[in-house]
Amino acid sequence: MKGMQIGRAFTLIEPGPVVLVTTHDGQKNNIMTITWTMVLDFAPRFAITTGPWNYSYAALKKTRECVIAIPTVDLIDKVVGVGTCSGADTDKFGKFGLTPVKAKHVRAPLIEECLANIECRVIDIVAKHNIVVLEGVAAYFDSSRKEKRTVHAVGDGTFVTDGRKLDRREMMKSKLPDGV
Amino acid sequence: MKGMQIGRAFTLIEPGPVVLVTTHDGQKNNIMTITWTMVLDFAPRFAITTGPWNYSYAALKKTRECVIAIPTVDLIDKVVGVGTCSGADTDKFGKFGLTPVKAKHVRAPLIEECLANIECRVIDIVAKHNIVVLEGVAAYFDSSRKEKRTVHAVGDGTFVTDGRKLDRREMMKSKLPDGV
Repeated sequence: MKGMQIGRAFTLIEPGPVVLVTTHDGQKNNIMTITWTMVLDFAPRFAITTGPWNYSYAALKKTRECVIAIPTVDLIDKVVGVGTCSGADTDKFGKFGLTPVKAKHVRAPLIEECLANIECRVIDIVAKHNIVVLEGVAAYFDSSRKEKRTVHAVGDGTFVTDGRKLDRREMMKSKLPDGV
Repeated sequence: MKGMQIGRAFTLIEPGPVVLVTTHDGQKNNIMTITWTMVLDFAPRFAITTGPWNYSYAALKKTRECVIAIPTVDLIDKVVGVGTCSGADTDKFGKFGLTPVKAKHVRAPLIEECLANIECRVIDIVAKHNIVVLEGVAAYFDSSRKEKRTVHAVGDGTFVTDGRKLDRREMMKSKLPDGV
C-alpha cells in the first residue's frame, strides 16, 4: 500500500465502485458498505449518502473522520457481508478477516486487503439530504495486487464487475485537470 | 423505449455510469455529459455535481427540469464529444446525431439512442457544494437494445465498460426495497 497523489484520488471514486467506509468511534473500529458516492471536486472532495440508519453514522458525525477503502471483485462476499450486518453487535474486521492498518491523519483505519484507501475529513453535513461532504487528505494504492477490478452495485442485489478499458485521453485532453 | 417503474430507476444510477443530462431552456435543447452523480433515495432522488461552468446549468436552474439519459458503450465517442463542446455554440443533438424525443412531464427531451431515460425535476440546489438534487418522475428503458453495457468514467480520460454480472440477491434480501 504505497502513497498515491491526493490529486488523483478522485479517479478512485468517479467510476462509481462500491466502497467500504471505516470509522473509529474512540473505542472501536467499524466498517460500512456504501454504494451512494459522488465526486464533488478534483481537490478532492466527495459526497456520500448516509444517515442515522447506518450505525457508523454516529462515529462519522462525532469524529468527523473516515477512510474510504476500495475493494475489488475477489472481496465481493465480504463487501456484501459488511453491508448486511451492524457494527452495533459485530466486530466486522474480525468477522470478515479484514486487517485494519493505522492511518496517518485520521483514527479510522485503512483496510489492508483493499486496492486503495483514502483518508478523509468530514467538512460538511447537508442533513436535509443525508449528504456527508468529505475532503480527501491522503491516498494509498496497492499496485502489487493482481486483481484490480472493482465492482458496481446495481441496487437490486446484483453487481457488475469492471470490464474492458477504453482510452479517450486524446479527445478529453482539454477537460482533464493538471497532473491527471 | 417503454415505461419503467419509477421505483426501480435508482438502479440505473447506482452503478455509477457516465450519463447524459438534457435540458430545454425555452428555446432549444441541450445535452451535457455528467460523471459525478449519486443516488440519494429510492424515491428516487439523485444528486449531480454541476455549476455555472456547464452551459446547461442556467437552463437547469431556470426551468428546474432535466432528463438523465443512460448511454451504452457503443455511444462512447458521442458521450465524450458532448462533454468536450459547449451548447453555447453547438446544437449537440444535430452534431452527434442524437434524436430528441418528447418527454411526458418535462420539456427537456429524452434521447432515443440511449438505453434508458429518467425525467427529473430539480427539488433543491445546494449551491455551496454545487450539488443539484433531482427527483425522478418517470423512467423509460429500451429492452429491445442489444448493447446494454454502460461505461464508467475514471476521470483521467479512460473509461471502464461493464463486465461480468454477479448475483448476490439472496445475501442482500433483507436490504432491498420492496419491488426491486
